[in-house]
Amino acid sequence: MTPVMSVEELSRFLDEEFPQIHAGGKAYFVESISPGEAVLRLKATEAHLRPGGTISGPSMMALADLAAYVVILAHIGPVALAVTTNLNINFLRKPAPGDLLCTCRLLKLGKRLAVVECGIAGEGDEDYAAHATATYSVPPR
Amino acid sequence: MTPVMSVEELSRFLDEEFPQIHAGGKAYFVESISPGEAVLRLKATEAHLRPGGTISGPSMMALADLAAYVVILAHIGPVALAVTTNLNINFLRKPAPGDLLCTCRLLKLGKRLAVVECGIAGEGDEDYAAHATATYSVPPR
Amino acid sequence: MTPVMSVEELSRFLDEEFPQIHAGGKAYFVESISPGEAVLRLKATEAHLRPGGTISGPSMMALADLAAYVVILAHIGPVALAVTTNLNINFLRKPAPGDLLCTCRLLKLGKRLAVVECGIAGEGDEDYAAHATATYSVPPR
Amino acid sequence: MTPVMSVEELSRFLDEEFPQIHAGGKAYFVESISPGEAVLRLKATEAHLRPGGTISGPSMMALADLAAYVVILAHIGPVALAVTTNLNINFLRKPAPGDLLCTCRLLKLGKRLAVVECGIAGEGDEDYAAHATATYSVPPR
Repeated sequence: MTPVMSVEELSRFLDEEFPQIHAGGKAYFVESISPGEAVLRLKATEAHLRPGGTISGPSMMALADLAAYVVILAHIGPVALAVTTNLNINFLRKPAPGDLLCTCRLLKLGKRLAVVECGIAGEGDEDYAAHATATYSVPPR
Repeated sequence: MTPVMSVEELSRFLDEEFPQIHAGGKAYFVESISPGEAVLRLKATEAHLRPGGTISGPSMMALADLAAYVVILAHIGPVALAVTTNLNINFLRKPAPGDLLCTCRLLKLGKRLAVVECGIAGEGDEDYAAHATATYSVPPR
Repeated sequence: MTPVMSVEELSRFLDEEFPQIHAGGKAYFVESISPGEAVLRLKATEAHLRPGGTISGPSMMALADLAAYVVILAHIGPVALAVTTNLNINFLRKPAPGDLLCTCRLLKLGKRLAVVECGIAGEGDEDYAAHATATYSVPPR
Repeated sequence: MTPVMSVEELSRFLDEEFPQIHAGGKAYFVESISPGEAVLRLKATEAHLRPGGTISGPSMMALADLAAYVVILAHIGPVALAVTTNLNINFLRKPAPGDLLCTCRLLKLGKRLAVVECGIAGEGDEDYAAHATATYSVPPR
């Protein structure tokens, strides 16, 4: 599985096609792309926090969903039409305050469905704060 | 299963404890509470939309998660400490542009875990745009 | 959504195509078919039980998966090629000893994917012992 | 996370407490235990197969559920009372005929909940045939 888009190409694609994810300030960043894998960063702003200063569950779900989209696009190219069909997330422990990193790995890149696994952790944390799997329906190619 | 909080009490509790969910404009509203059930409305603002004017997947996940929290609080009282441990969502069809309603039903209200099922549909739609189940860890009581 | 196969046709199809589900004695029975819905019965034999005489988790998973397959076939006709892509199950409470009934409802019957929701309860029980959602990939038609 | 039970102790515990999993012939074997991880083998018998000679979905679900139980017991000791509360499985590709290996890893071992991730592959296969996550409720200790 060789990536066909770079970090810069993916970032530009997201900025152009999904400006809404940056409503309220740019928060999601593509950190790295490698074979079968993508890493995203969530730079928490006020809107992502819960009492105590930790990042909210819905922000982690949005992060996992976006990271899944990015790792798929990175390997099939810039198609806006990939859509999530299923997302399952387990919240494991409260993350420390600060940025979150989401590492997302392709489990399957089929003709019609792509399945990924994502681990979310605070920067420098060994333990996941959350773990998700997601399925995307991908356009025939 | 008899509710112990009213729509007004729940709305006030959310406003006070989770002002962040209203960052960018008030969008989530408790519509009704009945035995074992809650209905929430998502009044879409620009931040919730995707190209084409339909509400984004992450907005539906946030709606399901909040509705799950509300139906649980409605039956156990105002405890800020209930936390999501698992959420699974299937996206079924693109909703029509406009508000979304989320109907959330208690499947189990145990001593340690509560499990709910949520159906999300456009107002007036018969078919669900998304269907979710969620588990919350609830404080001993 | 109008069924195109009867209880008898579905039972015969399963017996012929999937004799393995009856290894160890016939246990799974199609009880009824109605628009968008199927009900299956698991008549527990020794192999399905756990200490205490209640039906095991894996038996409930197998029941939900089979019920999902049956409700889909009931509405698209006898195609052996529908395959499960995702199954999510929440175990809610120990069922009473005795038969289990699984009521499975179509949430979506698309061109490529079908999504169902299943509730499993002991016969006569009001509360679910388990609740599942499943996605099947269905052949183009 | 240091294991507190050996392969032999776990195998004996399963044989004694859950003889039902061997109904129809011994099929499930604990292969190895290491910090945070367990590997199980499913030696397919006729009852686990589908047309074409590949192992059925329900057999893989049972394998993942058992592997989850084993990796938890391996780290908390022989308590019969751990029960599955949630299992989510994605079926990725048909496995080749032959034995299946399930590698199960602890994502969280909390006071009340344990969460695991399992990858299932044919022996020698690099790609997973299925990937599951599961949550167990564990007795206070």
